[in-house]
Amino acid sequence: MPLIDNAVYRDGVRVATPASLELTFEAMKEHGGMGWMGLYRPSPEELASVAEEFDLHHLAIEDALVGHQRAKIERYGDCLFVVLRPARYIDTTEVVEFGELHIFIGPDYVITVRHAESPDVGTVRRRLEGNPALLALGPEAVLYALLDQVVDEYLPVVLGLENDIDEIEDDLFGNNADVSRRIYALSREVLEFQRATKPLGAMLDSLERGAEKYLVNIELQRNLRDVSDHVESIVQHADSFRQILQNALTVHLTQVGQRQNEEMRRLSEVSYQQGEEVKKISSWAAIIFAPTLVAGIYGMNFEVMPELQWSFGYPFAIALMLGFAGTLYAIFKKRNWL
Amino acid sequence: MPLIDNAVYRDGVRVATPASLELTFEAMKEHGGMGWMGLYRPSPEELASVAEEFDLHHLAIEDALVGHQRAKIERYGDCLFVVLRPARYIDTTEVVEFGELHIFIGPDYVITVRHAESPDVGTVRRRLEGNPALLALGPEAVLYALLDQVVDEYLPVVLGLENDIDEIEDDLFGNNADVSRRIYALSREVLEFQRATKPLGAMLDSLERGAEKYLVNIELQRNLRDVSDHVESIVQHADSFRQILQNALTVHLTQVGQRQNEEMRRLSEVSYQQGEEVKKISSWAAIIFAPTLVAGIYGMNFEVMPELQWSFGYPFAIALMLGFAGTLYAIFKKRNWL
Amino acid sequence: MPLIDNAVYRDGVRVATPASLELTFEAMKEHGGMGWMGLYRPSPEELASVAEEFDLHHLAIEDALVGHQRAKIERYGDCLFVVLRPARYIDTTEVVEFGELHIFIGPDYVITVRHAESPDVGTVRRRLEGNPALLALGPEAVLYALLDQVVDEYLPVVLGLENDIDEIEDDLFGNNADVSRRIYALSREVLEFQRATKPLGAMLDSLERGAEKYLVNIELQRNLRDVSDHVESIVQHADSFRQILQNALTVHLTQVGQRQNEEMRRLSEVSYQQGEEVKKISSWAAIIFAPTLVAGIYGMNFEVMPELQWSFGYPFAIALMLGFAGTLYAIFKKRNWL
Amino acid sequence: MPLIDNAVYRDGVRVATPASLELTFEAMKEHGGMGWMGLYRPSPEELASVAEEFDLHHLAIEDALVGHQRAKIERYGDCLFVVLRPARYIDTTEVVEFGELHIFIGPDYVITVRHAESPDVGTVRRRLEGNPALLALGPEAVLYALLDQVVDEYLPVVLGLENDIDEIEDDLFGNNADVSRRIYALSREVLEFQRATKPLGAMLDSLERGAEKYLVNIELQRNLRDVSDHVESIVQHADSFRQILQNALTVHLTQVGQRQNEEMRRLSEVSYQQGEEVKKISSWAAIIFAPTLVAGIYGMNFEVMPELQWSFGYPFAIALMLGFAGTLYAIFKKRNWL
Amino acid sequence: MPLIDNAVYRDGVRVATPASLELTFEAMKEHGGMGWMGLYRPSPEELASVAEEFDLHHLAIEDALVGHQRAKIERYGDCLFVVLRPARYIDTTEVVEFGELHIFIGPDYVITVRHAESPDVGTVRRRLEGNPALLALGPEAVLYALLDQVVDEYLPVVLGLENDIDEIEDDLFGNNADVSRRIYALSREVLEFQRATKPLGAMLDSLERGAEKYLVNIELQRNLRDVSDHVESIVQHADSFRQILQNALTVHLTQVGQRQNEEMRRLSEVSYQQGEEVKKISSWAAIIFAPTLVAGIYGMNFEVMPELQWSFGYPFAIALMLGFAGTLYAIFKKRNWL
Ligand SMILES: [Mg+2]
Ligand SMILES: [Mg+2]
Ligand SMILES: [Mg+2]
Ligand SMILES: [Mg+2]
Ligand SMILES: [Mg+2]
Ligand SMILES: [Mg+2]
Ligand SMILES: [Mg+2]
Ligand SMILES: [Mg+2]
Ligand SMILES: [Mg+2]
Ligand SMILES: [Mg+2]
Ligand SMILES: [Mg+2]
Ligand SMILES: [Mg+2]
Ligand SMILES: [Mg+2]
Ligand SMILES: [Mg+2]
Ligand SMILES: [Mg+2]
Ligand SMILES: [Mg+2]
Ligand SMILES: [Mg+2]
Ligand SMILES: [Mg+2]
Ligand SMILES: [Mg+2]
Ligand SMILES: [Mg+2]
Ligand SMILES: [Mg+2]
Ligand SMILES: [Mg+2]
Ligand SMILES: [Mg+2]
Ligand SMILES: [Mg+2]
Ligand SMILES: [Mg+2]
Ligand SMILES: [Mg+2]
Ligand SMILES: [Mg+2]
Ligand SMILES: [Mg+2]
Ligand SMILES: [Mg+2]
Ligand SMILES: [Mg+2]
Ligand SMILES: [Mg+2]
Repeated sequence: MPLIDNAVYRDGVRVATPASLELTFEAMKEHGGMGWMGLYRPSPEELASVAEEFDLHHLAIEDALVGHQRAKIERYGDCLFVVLRPARYIDTTEVVEFGELHIFIGPDYVITVRHAESPDVGTVRRRLEGNPALLALGPEAVLYALLDQVVDEYLPVVLGLENDIDEIEDDLFGNNADVSRRIYALSREVLEFQRATKPLGAMLDSLERGAEKYLVNIELQRNLRDVSDHVESIVQHADSFRQILQNALTVHLTQVGQRQNEEMRRLSEVSYQQGEEVKKISSWAAIIFAPTLVAGIYGMNFEVMPELQWSFGYPFAIALMLGFAGTLYAIFKKRNWL
Repeated sequence: MPLIDNAVYRDGVRVATPASLELTFEAMKEHGGMGWMGLYRPSPEELASVAEEFDLHHLAIEDALVGHQRAKIERYGDCLFVVLRPARYIDTTEVVEFGELHIFIGPDYVITVRHAESPDVGTVRRRLEGNPALLALGPEAVLYALLDQVVDEYLPVVLGLENDIDEIEDDLFGNNADVSRRIYALSREVLEFQRATKPLGAMLDSLERGAEKYLVNIELQRNLRDVSDHVESIVQHADSFRQILQNALTVHLTQVGQRQNEEMRRLSEVSYQQGEEVKKISSWAAIIFAPTLVAGIYGMNFEVMPELQWSFGYPFAIALMLGFAGTLYAIFKKRNWL
Repeated sequence: MPLIDNAVYRDGVRVATPASLELTFEAMKEHGGMGWMGLYRPSPEELASVAEEFDLHHLAIEDALVGHQRAKIERYGDCLFVVLRPARYIDTTEVVEFGELHIFIGPDYVITVRHAESPDVGTVRRRLEGNPALLALGPEAVLYALLDQVVDEYLPVVLGLENDIDEIEDDLFGNNADVSRRIYALSREVLEFQRATKPLGAMLDSLERGAEKYLVNIELQRNLRDVSDHVESIVQHADSFRQILQNALTVHLTQVGQRQNEEMRRLSEVSYQQGEEVKKISSWAAIIFAPTLVAGIYGMNFEVMPELQWSFGYPFAIALMLGFAGTLYAIFKKRNWL
Repeated sequence: MPLIDNAVYRDGVRVATPASLELTFEAMKEHGGMGWMGLYRPSPEELASVAEEFDLHHLAIEDALVGHQRAKIERYGDCLFVVLRPARYIDTTEVVEFGELHIFIGPDYVITVRHAESPDVGTVRRRLEGNPALLALGPEAVLYALLDQVVDEYLPVVLGLENDIDEIEDDLFGNNADVSRRIYALSREVLEFQRATKPLGAMLDSLERGAEKYLVNIELQRNLRDVSDHVESIVQHADSFRQILQNALTVHLTQVGQRQNEEMRRLSEVSYQQGEEVKKISSWAAIIFAPTLVAGIYGMNFEVMPELQWSFGYPFAIALMLGFAGTLYAIFKKRNWL
Repeated sequence: MPLIDNAVYRDGVRVATPASLELTFEAMKEHGGMGWMGLYRPSPEELASVAEEFDLHHLAIEDALVGHQRAKIERYGDCLFVVLRPARYIDTTEVVEFGELHIFIGPDYVITVRHAESPDVGTVRRRLEGNPALLALGPEAVLYALLDQVVDEYLPVVLGLENDIDEIEDDLFGNNADVSRRIYALSREVLEFQRATKPLGAMLDSLERGAEKYLVNIELQRNLRDVSDHVESIVQHADSFRQILQNALTVHLTQVGQRQNEEMRRLSEVSYQQGEEVKKISSWAAIIFAPTLVAGIYGMNFEVMPELQWSFGYPFAIALMLGFAGTLYAIFKKRNWL
């Protein structure tokens, strides 16, 4: 059985570490203490046997088996069933990974069912075992410590998302064409992060109201209030992320349009430049060609062509050629084709 | 009469299966049990006869006849009238199909009027007949089981929509031009799915409050609460779908703009390339043409053309030609026209 | 006076049809019944005389005179002043036309002031006269029936708007350039329809609360509740129309961008094609031209040109020409200019 | 002192018109009546002296001095401090001008401090002096009449904004390029108009609740309710303006894109046309040129060129030329270059 | 220790200025007065020693150490912990700088922990020492004065942001391409400003409710109400900034599109102009070329060419040339190529 840790506590001190679930029940009775079982991805059968031992409600067990639950609190008689959606930021892939933690809180037991790497339940246990006064407050103290851990683990996620947004901003005003894909993907991540964190506000409110009503230890109440405060801060950040990303999307659209303007301006300039040059080449070709007509004329073999006999016929022809070419040059120049 | 199934139950066990509606009433009296009639698309007359037998309120009957009702609960005296909007995802056409289910819950009867393939009321009946303890709780238990079935059938729809969104994302960053039409169509489907599912939250709240007030069996209350939880999860998913599709639409707009930029860049490059080539061809034509002018001059038939008598006249002309062509070549090269 | 119909009812039955407003008051006293006057676009003076007769509050009269009121209920002592905004869909012009109906509900009288073609108050009167049991419930029953009529008349409007949206969708993915104007106009119509229908929810809630408090006949309460249900359905539809039109606007923007891409791609292709052809023509011109240069050279009249005396000079020149042209052809072919 | 009007009223009738603020206090005591002082842009010193005379709270005075307050009600002991943001539509510039009115309402005095041309406080005073029964109700009646005036003056603003929107619509589907600037400016105006009018709803609610609690004259209550109704209508209009302008902005974006498509289509067509013509000219040039090659060949001076001696050499050459040109023509025609 | 100022007050008058925190406690006991310690960026150890001396709650100390808290109020027993987010507008860089102020309010002490240049706590102390009556009201009065200062310091920020928006508007309709980056950056600033100011509304509400409940001095209550009013005004401004910037973003998008249209129109015109000129040059070249063909023909050396012997052969050839050229000219002119 994937039983990570299993202990019985009395007055905040570990008094037994039963080897199996079956022994836990006896040890709890023997010491009159609180049992805390930490499970990791149990099989349906294993979960069923835990449920039977502690009389857990079948609807809670169904949820724990099916998974993909939203964060929530359900009360079944004197057993509280809490679902949390821990998250962690994977630095290498820059992706937020969401986990799922199910907690059964009974009068004298805590069962944690973890389905992902986060949260670090071991740290919570060590923190509580290092603080017997807190642990001695019983299952509610464990629930608080678990909530605190999950919420504390959200902070690096917020920082990671904030860093992603900063990178996207650089991309936005830099030259990265793929930025829309990134904004889109990050928006989905933020949306899922909101789905994980937003329900916690109401959950903690209800826990605080319950704690106030049942006169739970005042320090525990304050601790819950502290977690609640951190949740609110996280929720506000996530919300502002969504708004910033929305703006970034519109700004990106504008950037795309602006880049198009630049592209078009560049196209305009280049094509104008080329057109001017083609005009020049064509004009020069025409200018060079014009004298050829004169040469062709005086290359004709008519018997009667007076100019051919002129002694200044040749210079006259050359002068004609230059005149023709010069006239064309002048016309083209005037028309700005040269 | 489209009477799919018709049974009288006592203590959760089927004690009679009357052949007609008229006999049901007698059988119910005889056994002192609960009647459950399952109708499928009854005609107005059939519905009217049921209404008369069980004294159903005419406004409820009017709604059941007109159809296209929103999901809701109405109370008429001791009869509850419930309208549900079941849905199913048709894999072949990737379309969500919406149905309509009307339920009349009386002190000792349940009448279900189904107008579409979904939900699978037969499964609900089998589930309850297989759980006499639950069925023995009476009409409220049947209502719960119907609600549970309808809500459970929403899950494949959520998965189908999620899959459609994933496909749209692939289209978005792939090269499918038709993606805006798809996003648009899917948005309408999600909107209608929200219209079907959102009212269920308030409906279940009111049922839960009623159940608490009238001290309905605690397990039934918990079951309702479980359905309510699933509804909330579905509603949240549908809501995030809407936000994702909204983003997808904006991203698509950006993609269209980006594709335009690429198109324009490509146009720029191609037209630049062509322009350069035209320039080169024209320039070469001019270079080849230049010597022709020289040839034309020395092809003239003037009697007095001293060069023609020169013994090196011919090489001189060739040199002139090469010089002329070379000069043009140099000029064009310098001007980057070649 | 624009007095469409004027009757005194007792126990739901018409007992008098006074010819003028002045006589109504006497008839009401004589029969101890309820008066119902139906006015159509009365002049200020006519309205003033009604107000005096029935002691209607001057603020209500002011509203009725000024018109362009929002839907609302005001209570002045034992008189209720109700403003409704009926609507009808004009099929020929595909436009929603909004009307205005003012209702004064006193302890023993109903005064309806209609300012437009809709709603059909005559139908309401006929329905009630055909149901004396309902009409016998007094002014509240008349108010219900009027509300029911107005709300029932909203349904064809919803269908008309839905049809308009379907047409817009066709335009959207068809090739109609004018679709943005249509979306814009329809959005304004939907907005105004929402302004007409949304307040009805709160108005009916307040009427229902009043009816419950004053122990109004239970069936009348249920009828009000039924109207309220239909209103909610209409409001939801109008709301989804707004969202669909919003999406349609964005999709249209995308379509415009996509059409631009196609336009640009077409421009690209055509201009590329043309450029290639111009290149080919120029290249062929150059190839044809090259031999001319050779011909020109051997057309020169130098006395000393050894090739001219060669017996194979002519074929040699032809070979030179072919060689020159062939070389150009090869070069152009290699450079892909041909 | 900018004391516009200053009067003492008893039973709704003006009994004194003191020349200065100092005398007002005495006159009020002497007649046991209500004082109403109308100030226009008083200096800090003047305001301070009023405050001292009537013991106005320094925080209210501070607000009145600083100005640019939002619409609000503050209660200081038995003195009510009301800030209103009147507005008027300047037809010539099509701009909304916002003013500010401060009202101090004490048990037996009203002090109005006006900072802009609107509202027309003089009209209010005349209306009340013409209705002594209303004025006799004391300071609350004056407050009502001032509120009524301010709200009535909002109506032309609503009409002016509506007219601006209509003009923008014409621009939108006409050809005005400056429409985005106009939409933007109008949106800001609407936003500020909302800021001026929206708080009035809650203010009037609180006044109505106070009036109900302190059993203020029922007609005064109804009057307040009437103002409240008009405010709600104005607020709804302003809200719909914002939505319409939002749509207009998106539609304009689409129009810009559509105009771009037309521009591009025009560019496409023109450049295609030109390209075709250039191709034709080049092709014709090549066709004309081809015979020149033949002419050049037979213009060569080789001694041995058999064709030259042929008696049909000349027609043969002409035939060759025509053949060559014809062949090119055929080729070009086939390739669609002509 | 970064102890900026440290004083003990009795009846609003400074009675001691202890040199160290340790002495403060004794001085407070000795004079029976209120201590007010002003710290600036204390180290964790310093904060810990203060916490120990005044028994501050460790969760509050943790928040003060970690920093980056949202504005909030927490109550720990009889100690109030207040976090504020002051802001100031840096004119040179046009950037909003956010600070953080932690306030511990006990029954007889105030501890302010400042982490940034703003707010100006010294001014608050001077204001209160100059108003002993107010200071004599104890810690609540100090809290009010600190809140008032922080909120008063928001005003220049609002003005700075407003000025930034005006500048952006000029950029928008001017020709600044970088405006989208500016809008984006300003939106983020406004978002953060909202995060700093929005919570103050609820905080002040809760303080006002507490003040009312515990019968705090009425003037202090009014002062809190005044701060609350200013907060509301600031919050409304920030909200309208966000809406204006949203509009500005869309308008900018439109401007980008419009500039593209102009660019494209310019490209169209220029390329049309160039195309026309190229056509003209080519046409003229063809016209000049045509006579060359005639010249070439009569330059051929055939023995039998009758025209060569004609006495008018030469003029005939010239006429042919002119005719050919003229025909081309006429054709080109007709086709509009010239
Ligand atoms: Mg479940
Ligand atoms: Mg990421
Ligand atoms: Mg924590
Ligand atoms: Mg902690
Ligand atoms: Mg990163
Ligand atoms: Mg990175
Ligand atoms: Mg904390
Ligand atoms: Mg109905
Ligand atoms: Mg689909
Ligand atoms: Mg289920
Ligand atoms: Mg289930
Ligand atoms: Mg699919
Ligand atoms: Mg598929
Ligand atoms: Mg574009
Ligand atoms: Mg229409
Ligand atoms: Mg109806
Ligand atoms: Mg009906
Ligand atoms: Mg239609
Ligand atoms: Mg049509
Ligand atoms: Mg204007
Ligand atoms: Mg008015
Ligand atoms: Mg009025
Ligand atoms: Mg105007
Ligand atoms: Mg105008
Ligand atoms: Mg009115
Ligand atoms: Mg700035
Ligand atoms: Mg202040
Ligand atoms: Mg102040
Ligand atoms: Mg600035
Ligand atoms: Mg500046
Ligand atoms: Mg103030």
